[in-house]
Amino acid sequence: MSKKLKLIDLESHDSNESTLNVISFQRHLPFDPQRIFYVLNNKVNEIRGEHAHKDCWQFLVPMYGEVEVYTNDGIEEKVIILENKNQGLLLPPMVWSKQTYKTNDNILLVITSHDYDPDDYIHNFDNFLIEASK
Amino acid sequence: MSKKLKLIDLESHDSNESTLNVISFQRHLPFDPQRIFYVLNNKVNEIRGEHAHKDCWQFLVPMYGEVEVYTNDGIEEKVIILENKNQGLLLPPMVWSKQTYKTNDNILLVITSHDYDPDDYIHNFDNFLIEASK
Repeated sequence: MSKKLKLIDLESHDSNESTLNVISFQRHLPFDPQRIFYVLNNKVNEIRGEHAHKDCWQFLVPMYGEVEVYTNDGIEEKVIILENKNQGLLLPPMVWSKQTYKTNDNILLVITSHDYDPDDYIHNFDNFLIEASK
Repeated sequence: MSKKLKLIDLESHDSNESTLNVISFQRHLPFDPQRIFYVLNNKVNEIRGEHAHKDCWQFLVPMYGEVEVYTNDGIEEKVIILENKNQGLLLPPMVWSKQTYKTNDNILLVITSHDYDPDDYIHNFDNFLIEASK
């Protein structure tokens, strides 16, 4: 399984009135999801994340508003604007990430490959760089 | 597994700035999810659903705005207002359901136990009542 950051197009069905977006776990994701979480009621320029996961994959879907995602895999930095409601960002393990909520009332949905495990987090950036270089 | 309609409280973490809600599949749901979909850009009083599933379970989470859910299991009718962002509605198979989007720009997230299968749908209400009475 390639461990590259990747934007994945969602299956999207427009009717005259509304849009229905689908994420089929087997067809769209390279991992078997165990959990979802979503962030509500954020303030403008609120920052979340600022950690890497040792083993957990994440798939970030902007459901409302705009989120700026900074990533660093130990070699390369990227900044990705998530605002297209028909795309999600695949975030492999061992990628440092920080999310900046650019507007009020964003909703960011995150689908994860593992249930919550505090031991899976690397909160210190210098420690992350050491681990990423191994 | 009980096949009753049920409101399930989500795990909710408030910070000073935002709220993070969690759905751990193993801890919160009585089925193994295969797919999610979500409805965006609806109009006020738009109606969706109007079918039952033969085998598929669904878990409906109101992420933004208010959705009225009508259900009928062949014996009993219920109307449930989904607007509490910390709850979701467990909809077992063989329950007829119709969702009315009560405000503009609702976002309704649905987690399903099966991938899409057109043969799993019962679109005709009279046929549903016959199947439900068996």
